[in-house]
Amino acid sequence: MANDIKTLNIAVIPGDGIGKEVTPVAQQVLEKASEGVVNFNYTNFELGAERYLRDGAILPDDELEEIKKQDAILLGAVGDPRIKAGILERGLLLKLRFALDQYVNLRPTKLYKGVTSPLANPGDIDFVVVREGTEGLYCGAGGAVRVNTPNEVATEVSINTAYGVERVVRYAFDLAMKRKKHVTLVHKKNVLINAGDMWQRIVDKVGEEYPEVTHDYLHIDATTIFLVSNPSRFDVILTDNLFGDIITDEAGAVVGGVGYSASGCINATNEYPSMFEPIHGSAPDIAGKGIANPTAAVLSTAMLLRHFGYDEAAARIDAAVEADIQELGSTKRSTEQVGKDILARL
Amino acid sequence: MANDIKTLNIAVIPGDGIGKEVTPVAQQVLEKASEGVVNFNYTNFELGAERYLRDGAILPDDELEEIKKQDAILLGAVGDPRIKAGILERGLLLKLRFALDQYVNLRPTKLYKGVTSPLANPGDIDFVVVREGTEGLYCGAGGAVRVNTPNEVATEVSINTAYGVERVVRYAFDLAMKRKKHVTLVHKKNVLINAGDMWQRIVDKVGEEYPEVTHDYLHIDATTIFLVSNPSRFDVILTDNLFGDIITDEAGAVVGGVGYSASGCINATNEYPSMFEPIHGSAPDIAGKGIANPTAAVLSTAMLLRHFGYDEAAARIDAAVEADIQELGSTKRSTEQVGKDILARL
Ligand SMILES: CC(C)[C@H](C(=O)O)[C@@H](O)C(=O)O
Ligand SMILES: CC(C)[C@H](C(=O)O)[C@@H](O)C(=O)O
Repeated sequence: MANDIKTLNIAVIPGDGIGKEVTPVAQQVLEKASEGVVNFNYTNFELGAERYLRDGAILPDDELEEIKKQDAILLGAVGDPRIKAGILERGLLLKLRFALDQYVNLRPTKLYKGVTSPLANPGDIDFVVVREGTEGLYCGAGGAVRVNTPNEVATEVSINTAYGVERVVRYAFDLAMKRKKHVTLVHKKNVLINAGDMWQRIVDKVGEEYPEVTHDYLHIDATTIFLVSNPSRFDVILTDNLFGDIITDEAGAVVGGVGYSASGCINATNEYPSMFEPIHGSAPDIAGKGIANPTAAVLSTAMLLRHFGYDEAAARIDAAVEADIQELGSTKRSTEQVGKDILARL
Repeated sequence: MANDIKTLNIAVIPGDGIGKEVTPVAQQVLEKASEGVVNFNYTNFELGAERYLRDGAILPDDELEEIKKQDAILLGAVGDPRIKAGILERGLLLKLRFALDQYVNLRPTKLYKGVTSPLANPGDIDFVVVREGTEGLYCGAGGAVRVNTPNEVATEVSINTAYGVERVVRYAFDLAMKRKKHVTLVHKKNVLINAGDMWQRIVDKVGEEYPEVTHDYLHIDATTIFLVSNPSRFDVILTDNLFGDIITDEAGAVVGGVGYSASGCINATNEYPSMFEPIHGSAPDIAGKGIANPTAAVLSTAMLLRHFGYDEAAARIDAAVEADIQELGSTKRSTEQVGKDILARL
C-alpha cells in the first residue's frame, strides 16, 4: 500500500518576517491532511532579506535550477524594511514567477462565516481573480535618464502579447465552467487602448468557444467601486498583472483582511513548478511576535493539493479552516495556537 | 458698483448622457451663489457623442483654440456606448487635460452627514487626492504590432518627468499646509522602480522645504485596503495619473457613491483654463430619465469659484449642498428637484 503513495518534491521558501512563522504551520497542516494520500519531500531554500544582507545573494542561478526540479514551491512572504523597495520583490518573488512562467496568478476571495467584513452589507462574496502573472507592467521594461536632475525622465513599459493573454483567458473560461459560468474582464481600455483592445478581442474570441459562459467588461476604476458596493456580483475576474495586484488587495480587505487570502502562481502546463503563497506580505510590524495569522498560508497548501488533483485532502483543509474561522475567528490567538486548532480538526 | 464686478468667461461642455442633465443645474447654482460677486459669460461647446456621430468631429483645432481663450471650463461627462471605448475619452476629455496642461487633478473626498457609506464604520472621512494629470500611462505612448494575429504584441508606456512630478508634488505640499499637514505618496515602487523611485526622491526633496508637513508612502495595493479599513487616516493623497484614477473611484464608493464627488483639472500656473467636472461618467443606463443626481456637478462649481479666489461664494454652495444632503440625501428626487432644493438654500 504505502508503496503506491506518490512523493512530491516541495521547495520551501519561508522568506522574510512572518513568512518564517506561518510557513512551518502550513507545512504541519499539509502533512496531516495528506497522510496516506501523498508524501512530501521538502527542500528548504534560505532566500530573502537575511541571506541578501549576509552574502548579497538574492536568487543564485544554481538555486533557481534546483527549484526548477521541484514539483511545487511553498512560499511565505518576501520584503524587509532594511532593503530598498524592489530589490527582493523583483529579484526573488517576481523572478520566480517569471522564470517559472507562472502565468496564472489565482486568487480566490471568499467571505468566511465568522469573519467580520468592513462592509455594512457584504452579501455572499465568493469569487476568484485570475491575474496574469508574466506580462504587463511587471516585465521590468523601462528605464530612466538624467536621474537625480531636473531633467530626469523615467518610463515603465507594459508588454502584452496575444500568446500570454490568450492562455490566461482560456484558463479563466475553463475555471468559470466549474463555477457560476461568468467572467468579468477588468482593464482600462478607454485609456490603455492598445493592450485593452487586445485583451477584449481575445476574450471575445475565446468566449465564443464557451457558449455557456457569459462575460462582461469593467474598467479598473469601476471595479474598485463594485468591490465595495456589490462584491457578490463577481464570479471569475480576469485581469492583467497590475490591475490584478490592486483589486486582490481591495478584495482581501472586503472579506475581512488579506490574512484569509491565499494564492497560487500557476504554470498550468506544468513545465515548471507552481508556487503557493499567502497574499499578505512579510508584515515587519508584527514579525517575531508569534501572533501572525497562518490561515492564508494554510489555505495556500490546499491550493497546492488541488493543483495536483488531491481534491479530497484539499477539501479537508478548507473545511477545517472554515470551521476554525467560524468558531474561533474572532478570538486572539498565537500563530501556533491557530495551527493547533486547525490540526485538531483534521 | 456693478461695474466693479469681474466677468469670467466659461466654456460649457455638457458632453454626453447625464452630463447634459446635471450641467444646467450646476450653472443655475453657480449663477445664484455668485450674484453680486462675479459674473459669468458662458459659451456652449457641443462636443461629445452626438457631435461625433453627426460629423465625425471630436475636438476640432479651432474649437480648442476658442476654449483656450476662456477662463475656465465646466464639463459634464464624456462617453457613449455607441462609440468604441477610448475615442471620446482620449480625443476629448484627455486631450483637454493634456492640451491645457491641467497637471493637478484635484479630487476631494468627504463623507457628508446624511449619506450612507457602504462601510460599517466609516469614521470621519475627509481627504483630497492630488492626482497628476498630464503624464504616466495616460500619455498615449504605446502601440501594437501584428494586430489580430497570434503574434500580436501591445505596449503601453508610462512617461514620467521630474518636471511634471515636482510641480504636482509642490501643489500637494502647499495644499497639505492648509489642511492637516500630511501627505501620503501612493505608488508601486517595489515593482515600477524607475518611476516609483523618482516620485519618492522628489517627495523627499520637496518635503524638506515643508518641515511642518509629514509624509509617508503606501503601495497602491495597500492603499486600496486602507481606503476600506481606515479611510480616515488620509489627509492629502498624492499619486500618479492611473493610480489616482483608480483610488478616487474607490474613495467615491466609500463615501456613498461618486454622485457626491467633484473634481478640478487644474492648470495651477493659469497659463490655460482649468476644468471642473463631476467624477461620475455619462451613466447611459439612467440618462434621459431626469433622475441623475446633480450634486457632484454642483460641487464642481464651488471648486471653480474657489479656484478664482471667491471662497465665500464657494462656501455658500458647499454649505447649501451639505444641508441638502443631510436633510434630503436619502430621498428619491429628480435632477430638477435637487437643483431647486439647493437653490432654495442659497
Ligand atoms: C510584493 C509584490 C511584488 C507583489 C506583487 O505586486 O505582485 C505582491 O503585492 C503580491 O500581490 O503578490
Ligand atoms: C473617462 C476616463 C478617461 C477618465 C480617466 O480615466 O481619467 C475618468 O475615469 C476619470 O477618472 O476622470
